[in-house]
Formats: sequence, C-alpha cells, structure tokens
Amino acid sequence: MNQKSGFSQDEKDAVYRVLRERRDVRSGYLPRPLEDATLCRLLDAAHSAPSVGLMQPWRFIVVRDAAQRARVHELFQRANEAAAACHTQERGDIYVRLKLEGLLEAPQHLCVVCEATSERGHGLGRHSMPETSIYSVVCAIQNLWLAARAEGIGVGWVSILNPLAVKDLLRIPPDVELVAYLCVGYVEEFAERPDLERAGWEERASLTSVLRWEYFDRPYFDQPYRPGEDSR
Amino acid sequence: MNQKSGFSQDEKDAVYRVLRERRDVRSGYLPRPLEDATLCRLLDAAHSAPSVGLMQPWRFIVVRDAAQRARVHELFQRANEAAAACHTQERGDIYVRLKLEGLLEAPQHLCVVCEATSERGHGLGRHSMPETSIYSVVCAIQNLWLAARAEGIGVGWVSILNPLAVKDLLRIPPDVELVAYLCVGYVEEFAERPDLERAGWEERASLTSVLRWEYFDRPYFDQPYRPGEDSR
Repeated sequence: MNQKSGFSQDEKDAVYRVLRERRDVRSGYLPRPLEDATLCRLLDAAHSAPSVGLMQPWRFIVVRDAAQRARVHELFQRANEAAAACHTQERGDIYVRLKLEGLLEAPQHLCVVCEATSERGHGLGRHSMPETSIYSVVCAIQNLWLAARAEGIGVGWVSILNPLAVKDLLRIPPDVELVAYLCVGYVEEFAERPDLERAGWEERASLTSVLRWEYFDRPYFDQPYRPGEDSR
Repeated sequence: MNQKSGFSQDEKDAVYRVLRERRDVRSGYLPRPLEDATLCRLLDAAHSAPSVGLMQPWRFIVVRDAAQRARVHELFQRANEAAAACHTQERGDIYVRLKLEGLLEAPQHLCVVCEATSERGHGLGRHSMPETSIYSVVCAIQNLWLAARAEGIGVGWVSILNPLAVKDLLRIPPDVELVAYLCVGYVEEFAERPDLERAGWEERASLTSVLRWEYFDRPYFDQPYRPGEDSR
C-alpha cells in the first residue's frame, strides 16, 4: 500500500513551523526529566531517519546519572578552555561570555554514535562513499531535534568536547564513532533567533549566498527567480 | 521575543507524519520540474538547519541541464558496476535487480557540498570536533528531505558515485567537500515501506536494538520501559 494522500496546508505549515522554530538550546532547561514514553517517541523519530543501505548504524546512549553528567561537563570545561585560547583578544572576550552548553541543567544527555562496522545493509551505497554511514546518523539526530521542538523539548549539540575522552567515559569501543553529544530537556520557551546571532557572534547568511546554478562557480543570482519574491 | 506557544496536537501529528512517511525515492519521478518558488522553499528549509558556530557551510548546486544529468548517470553506472562486483553471487543477483537511483527521471538534481574553509562562525565548536561542519550540512539535507515530503516531492540520496568525478563535473574546488548528491522531483506517491526492505535487501531493526543506557555496553532493555507500550 502506498501513501497517495498529500499533506494539507495546515500539515505543511506545521512542518515548516518546526523547521523554522527549532533552536540549539544551551540554557533554560527545566529540571523535570523526560518521561520514558516521551523520550522513546523522540528516539523513534530518530530511528525513522534514512540510512545508507537501510543500515541504521545509529546507537543512542541515554545518560541520566547526575555524576556522569557532571563528568561530561568537566570535559566540556577542559575543551572550552583550549578553544577559548585560540581566539584573538577581542573575539575571546565575546567567546568567554557565551553560554555554550546546558550539560548540568539538562536532566538527560544523549550520546549518539555510529557503529559503522555493522554488517547491516551489506555495504550497499558505501563502496564509493563510506562516510554515508555517519551521515545517516546525523540525519537521525536532526529528526530527533525536530520532533523534540514540536514536543516543547530543547536539544543542544555540544561539540566542545574531546570525543576520545567522552568515549572513554561511556565505554564506547574504539571502532564506534562518536557523532554527537546532545543535551535534551523540557524548556519554557524557544528563542526567536539563534543564540549566537543574538550574542553578536555571527549573523545568518542569506539563502542566495549559498545557492549555485549547474556549477559550483555559477551563482544562483544569475537566474530570474529571487527567493523571497514568492508569497507562499 | 520568544516563542512560548506550544505545538497543537494536530501540528505534532503533522511533524511525526512527515518523519514517518519520508522515503528515499529512486523511481516514479514525474517529468514536471519544480517551480523555482517551490525549490527555493525547500532550499530555505535546508538553510534553516542548525550549524556549528552558525557557520552555515552548506552550498547547494541545482543541476537541471539534461546533458549534465546524463553525465552524472554515467558516473553512477560506473560506480555501480564496481560496487556490484564486490558482492557474493547470491547477494549480487539481488543487487543488480535493485533500482538505486532516479538520476535520468528526476528533472533536477541537487549537489550539496560543504565549504569548511569558510571563516563564518569563527571556528566556534570546531576546535575539538572539526567534522561538525560537515554534520551541519547533513542536517540541512534532512531538513530539505522532510519539507519535500510534505510538498509531495521525492528526494533520493545517491551515494553510488565517485565524489571526485562529480566534483570535477560540477567544477567544485578541491577544498570543498561533496556531502550528498540528490535526486529531487514530484512523485505520484510514496512507498509505505523503504525500497530496500520491500526488495528483501534488509529489514528495519527494532528501536530497542539501538538504545543503550548510561554506557554503550548496557542495553536499554534493562530499563522498565519498553518502546511500544505507550499508546501516545
């Protein structure tokens, strides 16, 4: 049986809303942990992501233990000091004021890894591009992020961590790759603009600046249509 | 101003529907090309993805020229022959019957690349995990994939390609990484189950098989909650 019925305008609006209003959440996590059923609903959303060869190489480690979360926070602090030292004085002054993670506040973390050595999928699609197993895992993360937003749950991706140190802490084998370390938790509200834009770190680029036409070196500007002219 | 209003049940249902009904589309593309406004709506959905340091390193090359699409199809055929030769006789017999791409049928392709050398984001979050620039690009692809599904537009990720040959064809500089090559186009319907499952290549794994608790080596089964017990 196939799905022939299209999405209603209301359904489309909901999809575009969640894409638009998803945020990387670094603060404002509420102490109430996710109910197991809610957490599994998010994980199920992740699990329905596309994967190369139907490999589904993602593995999700739910970290709730407070002592363990504090240890990860210590790893963040170490990595953050090293990262801060790489900026110029002026940038560094902004950098140290940024709130970049909610590891202590978020009542649960999610460590997402890729088991690329799995036989599942029988190697299909990975002969020419083996990196697609990891990309499948990232697709799963984005699915979870969007489902979480719809449920009023914040997600924050913490990449200021030494992945080897985190792997050691969570007993992740050497041949399993750490893809992402996420904070997950209920929040009161979602910021209208990305934190880094509000803090003056970076501004969002225009869509046209990232579009090309037929070749990498041919800007999309050369085409008659301009994004934004359409009222949708 | 912050977004305090939650998603209604109908909106949540639409979000979960799109996550559940998204498919990797390899056949059934209609010849009608996407209107520019529709295409840009999808690209805008991609462009609203999370990115490390607000770097937005994704670049989208829209490929519509029929001769160019045919050349990419030739590259697929070459890579597919090499991949097919790696299977055992039995697997190989199934492999050659699979329809793995819709490069000739889909009226537009989208080559998605990562410009990791961009100064945008000032390196934030990439000191310890530089690979997150590419992961940001994958998040953008998944956003586009979901928006497309809501619009009745199929997307198929073709990884059976030599990335260097595609880069050469599209004049992509050496330091820009090819992340994905996608077929994009309207379709009549979406399959209820993944193509590879229907063709007997691989079955979807259970959610519990990919969940772990606190440590990689501790199955989620040890927890009282079982996914599926919740009626939502």
